[in-house]
Amino acid sequence: MSTLINPSYVRCIEACQQCLIDCQVCLTKMATKESMNDCPYCCLQCIESCQVCLKMMAADSQWAAAYCRLCAEICTYCAEQCGAHDHDHCQRCAESCRACAAACREVASAA
Amino acid sequence: MSTLINPSYVRCIEACQQCLIDCQVCLTKMATKESMNDCPYCCLQCIESCQVCLKMMAADSQWAAAYCRLCAEICTYCAEQCGAHDHDHCQRCAESCRACAAACREVASAA
Amino acid sequence: MSTLINPSYVRCIEACQQCLIDCQVCLTKMATKESMNDCPYCCLQCIESCQVCLKMMAADSQWAAAYCRLCAEICTYCAEQCGAHDHDHCQRCAESCRACAAACREVASAA
Amino acid sequence: MSTLINPSYVRCIEACQQCLIDCQVCLTKMATKESMNDCPYCCLQCIESCQVCLKMMAADSQWAAAYCRLCAEICTYCAEQCGAHDHDHCQRCAESCRACAAACREVASAA
Repeated sequence: MSTLINPSYVRCIEACQQCLIDCQVCLTKMATKESMNDCPYCCLQCIESCQVCLKMMAADSQWAAAYCRLCAEICTYCAEQCGAHDHDHCQRCAESCRACAAACREVASAA
Repeated sequence: MSTLINPSYVRCIEACQQCLIDCQVCLTKMATKESMNDCPYCCLQCIESCQVCLKMMAADSQWAAAYCRLCAEICTYCAEQCGAHDHDHCQRCAESCRACAAACREVASAA
Repeated sequence: MSTLINPSYVRCIEACQQCLIDCQVCLTKMATKESMNDCPYCCLQCIESCQVCLKMMAADSQWAAAYCRLCAEICTYCAEQCGAHDHDHCQRCAESCRACAAACREVASAA
Repeated sequence: MSTLINPSYVRCIEACQQCLIDCQVCLTKMATKESMNDCPYCCLQCIESCQVCLKMMAADSQWAAAYCRLCAEICTYCAEQCGAHDHDHCQRCAESCRACAAACREVASAA
């Protein structure tokens, strides 16, 4: 990762990148299947929340922490929903969501 | 619509805006239901293709027409898939996709 | 605008669509010029904040109002910065930002 | 990177992720400065082209290769523009653009 990024954002940017991809994969695989809960509706929201965090952190925006705070909430919700499904892509997505929630909380609480 | 936009893009920008919203609604409502075809997997792709077109046209990019050409293909595919479902949101999405495909083709063919 | 959208979001979605486009135009025209203030760095952030609002409202997300609250703040900041420039695209951008801030505040305060 | 991603896309997804971040940093730092060429107007377009590629590859879209073909062109243009500036962020951006162009061409030519 570039050293030109604000160093306090590096870990969170990586977590958001991974979470966005794993949510997009989960959304893709689940989109046409019946679901017993909010998966992959949660992924659809999580993709957007990760994307805006990424962009705001890379832009060193004064709102980066505020977006990370919301992203942590959405990732936690998404981890609960996808984590209740046994599919590999759902489990993988839940894991990335938990890691992203932790990284986003860290950025939010440092602000 | 602003007159500061390249005038040849105004209609297409409006069509992409509407198509993006209607695909997002269709994706939201279908995401957790069983589907007999590619709806709403097609919407997921159509949202991205509309979004990049919007941004490239507003940026007066030399690639705007190339993105519109791809968007016309994806909208046509999405209109076929969603159009095969009776739900209001699918029919509405199919209609916006057809209008967007036409507007994108017009921009692509003028380049 | 589709009646399939949550009716309380219709005006705000339209304001975000216009603001996103006008910020992208302002960013495009200003990107390679010297600026005496934060324009168009503010536009870069405003584009992202409008985009995530649009997607969250169309998805009827429980976080839509929270994203609108942040978007109102960013639009207000962007209106101040771009409004201090005399260019047509900056004035146009500032006007769309003010309208978007008002629409976003309305959604945020109704939640 | 998740093994749930189509293996032929893994390297290109990583290159697009890095390029998007480095373009966003370059755009942020250059946005309010005078520029002798298209930097950072090129970054603004490159961010969009990388983002749509990422999403289409993660979604295993049949249009992924077509978007990578366009992205390779835009990255090549962006590398030329930013590469002509001495700033660390411009040089870093040009390097990531070259790597992304190569990875995108590989995906495009395999299709």
